[in-house]
Amino acid sequence: MRNYRRFLRGATGAVTGTFLGALWGVLQAQSNPAALAARQYRQQHERAIVDEFIDLLSIPDIAADRANIERNAQFIAKMMEKRGFTPRLVGVPGSNPVVFSEIDTPGATRTLVFYAHYDGQPLDPKEWATPPFSPTLRDRALDQDGKIIALPATRFDPENRLYARAASDDKANLLTLLTALDAIKAAGLKTKSNLKFVFEGEEEAGSINLEKILAANKPLFSGDMWFICDGPVHQTRRQQITFGARGITQVDITVYGPRHELHSGHYGNWAPNPAMMLAKLLASMKDDNGRVLVDHFYDGVAPLSATEKKAIADAPDVDQQLMRELWLGSTENAPKKLMELINLPSLNVRGMGAARIGAQASNVIPATAFATIDMRLVKGMDHHQTAQRLIEHIRQQGYFVVDSEPNAETRMAHAKVAKVIEKDGGYNAVRTSMDLPISQEIIRTVESARGPTVLMPTSGGSDPREIVERTLGVRTIGIPTVNHDNNQHSFNENVRIQNLWDGIELMAALLTM
Amino acid sequence: MRNYRRFLRGATGAVTGTFLGALWGVLQAQSNPAALAARQYRQQHERAIVDEFIDLLSIPDIAADRANIERNAQFIAKMMEKRGFTPRLVGVPGSNPVVFSEIDTPGATRTLVFYAHYDGQPLDPKEWATPPFSPTLRDRALDQDGKIIALPATRFDPENRLYARAASDDKANLLTLLTALDAIKAAGLKTKSNLKFVFEGEEEAGSINLEKILAANKPLFSGDMWFICDGPVHQTRRQQITFGARGITQVDITVYGPRHELHSGHYGNWAPNPAMMLAKLLASMKDDNGRVLVDHFYDGVAPLSATEKKAIADAPDVDQQLMRELWLGSTENAPKKLMELINLPSLNVRGMGAARIGAQASNVIPATAFATIDMRLVKGMDHHQTAQRLIEHIRQQGYFVVDSEPNAETRMAHAKVAKVIEKDGGYNAVRTSMDLPISQEIIRTVESARGPTVLMPTSGGSDPREIVERTLGVRTIGIPTVNHDNNQHSFNENVRIQNLWDGIELMAALLTM
Repeated sequence: MRNYRRFLRGATGAVTGTFLGALWGVLQAQSNPAALAARQYRQQHERAIVDEFIDLLSIPDIAADRANIERNAQFIAKMMEKRGFTPRLVGVPGSNPVVFSEIDTPGATRTLVFYAHYDGQPLDPKEWATPPFSPTLRDRALDQDGKIIALPATRFDPENRLYARAASDDKANLLTLLTALDAIKAAGLKTKSNLKFVFEGEEEAGSINLEKILAANKPLFSGDMWFICDGPVHQTRRQQITFGARGITQVDITVYGPRHELHSGHYGNWAPNPAMMLAKLLASMKDDNGRVLVDHFYDGVAPLSATEKKAIADAPDVDQQLMRELWLGSTENAPKKLMELINLPSLNVRGMGAARIGAQASNVIPATAFATIDMRLVKGMDHHQTAQRLIEHIRQQGYFVVDSEPNAETRMAHAKVAKVIEKDGGYNAVRTSMDLPISQEIIRTVESARGPTVLMPTSGGSDPREIVERTLGVRTIGIPTVNHDNNQHSFNENVRIQNLWDGIELMAALLTM
Repeated sequence: MRNYRRFLRGATGAVTGTFLGALWGVLQAQSNPAALAARQYRQQHERAIVDEFIDLLSIPDIAADRANIERNAQFIAKMMEKRGFTPRLVGVPGSNPVVFSEIDTPGATRTLVFYAHYDGQPLDPKEWATPPFSPTLRDRALDQDGKIIALPATRFDPENRLYARAASDDKANLLTLLTALDAIKAAGLKTKSNLKFVFEGEEEAGSINLEKILAANKPLFSGDMWFICDGPVHQTRRQQITFGARGITQVDITVYGPRHELHSGHYGNWAPNPAMMLAKLLASMKDDNGRVLVDHFYDGVAPLSATEKKAIADAPDVDQQLMRELWLGSTENAPKKLMELINLPSLNVRGMGAARIGAQASNVIPATAFATIDMRLVKGMDHHQTAQRLIEHIRQQGYFVVDSEPNAETRMAHAKVAKVIEKDGGYNAVRTSMDLPISQEIIRTVESARGPTVLMPTSGGSDPREIVERTLGVRTIGIPTVNHDNNQHSFNENVRIQNLWDGIELMAALLTM
């Protein structure tokens, strides 16, 4: 089937290919009975599906907000009880609960585990157009001047967007999985595998307790394949499968100037300015084309296999489309393409600050300057070693590096002092071979539900699949469903309604594998 | 008198010199009858003086807060009416009012104008230990673990500090001037000159309307000497006179990345990161030793006269003391001293930001990054030209520079786009010669009240004296009174009580010149 699709695309060029691809998708979706049943079910229950989703999204879900996290867990457990499950809340002291449940299928010879997370990224509500936990429907995306609309009585325009924290990342996948189960049941379809559902509550805090939770409950969480249901589909809106995920490590850097802010007139030119010091330090970390200058940063990166290289070459080229969508006049590491670059490690300044900006700015030399960095890792890199290499780089720039607040003596003893914190929750990258029989079966199943599919050796994002693989000795594959332009990790996160519908069909196909 | 003092210091070394200097100060203060009268008056009225000050400091005074600025102006006018003045509020459309009043002295042959400002620096109340407009007395400075104490019934410990926005910058000088007038009157002393009082309400907003106000009322504001009563005394706590002030120009820079924040995993390595771009841009502006790398930045700087050079050489060396006080292990532009450096221009990053830091940080590529810069100018530099030179420097780093929000087309047409705003309110530096007869008379008067005095060719800070000189054709000299460690322009601004007392004595001497 994949050969036929490729033939079509090769023979007709990109534009016609897109049309035929869409047609193929329609035909393929009809070829998977569970996906077809899911479509029919969804068409009859759109409003009820979204109502349940809105209830879920209305519960604040930042991992550090323990009281509301507990409310989420209880609500999800009730969602599962309504469907006849006997859910369990599984945790370790200090952790947010994992909501777990399972379906035993008589005669099944394998177990498929479906993972999603119910916590959302931290946020600043002031940045949001509408409150992040008051789910709001718009006729289209905000940056296309989408207007707030009332929920329709029955059918939704598929281009509508629902705005709320975790609408895409990652409560959408709880919804698509449970709705797909409803559809399978309503159609009287049978499951072939044993199924487990694992819904984590602190993925956006780096899955800091997941390893302990899994290690303490290995039989409960074991299976033949973990589906990591998270992340966006391809920018062309085609379905996508990610066979790996980048690892991550985060480092917080504080650079010190005078003990307290100083009047920039009375001390400017004399007192070191930590904002300028930080600027020079950050500037030393990458060259002008985006290559990381930290010594040994790229050491040990595992090469891609022939199949993986081919998958990258076959993926649609979206760079020009994305540059238009994102108003970009240039890209880093050009002329390399996005698809190639997310298979390489990265260093990103995710936040930076010194003194005040805007109306509150004043003429001071700041006392400190702060930057927070995430580094994405690919297979073959170690997260702790990578953080240490960055720390060594900071030392090479002349800094005395400490890992807690430096006192007066320390600050006076060194020309430049930086506090550098390697944050908890780092993990390594993993990559499942596309050549395994189960990988090939999953590709066929996904394409039977969703048509032409982009095969990604590595997801650009990071998720806890490395923890899962290492702790349980299982394989993982990533199943994304949401739109790429969902603002996940930023303000105004949203999900496109059609992606919810597609996700339900996809999950129905995988649940009946 | 100055020769005698110098002889003492030269003969005995720094430490004994400090002791003798203090003794000298006491003797000298007793030699000025108005200063002596002010001391006696103050000792009998300490609590009432501070009570009036607290009332004044309790009115929020940010220039943009028009309603409260008006309350300040009315309150200050009432303070003057109580003292028998007929104050006037003078302004132009859109300006905050200048509170003006005057004293005609029969037979006087000259007019002295005393300037202070009643607005305070913008602030973020979250950063303050106590609310900025709830004046709070502490037994000593906060960074020496000062504790909140009740107001004493009669006499204050002179090391007490009063915390409030504008406590030092610059409402202190309204208080010292009006209290000195009370003391002069109580002692039955006579003024010799005509006196004018000019209290501005938008100095911290760059005195954006002062030129218009002065130009529209030239006779009202004219005089033989303007005393700019603002800024801190020397770090040794010695009295100081500033014969000039650095000019200033401020520039806001916004650097653009993707249209909206992006997930750093899915787009990191590919989408340009504006925080990193800004870091590289800022890093290009100064070398590692603090020298500004903007082309022609130092062009045209006027040389110092022999008297000015000698004044700098005679000033106490406080660099080591300040490094200990500020926990600094190095300084910019070493081995040059602070005293020398504030007679040179500077470039300072006063605030910087991209995305979020701390608990709200998330794994994004920021959409924009922002820096705000102040440049301090010395005599011979033009503020607009200096801002333009910085803009040209930004262009040289490959940026397409715009002065309003760039649209999609602009952002897509250029690899790097920066919005650069030269802020209103820039002005040039001025410097009054120390060799003028009136300069020498002022030095003698100040030393008769306050003892050994540090003579600064240029204040490190900027104040509107350039506007005053240019618009009215008058000379200006800066008379500072507050403690150097007052946190002006930052949070937890405070004034040391002894500096208030000293300021009253100093003003009494100048008012009776």
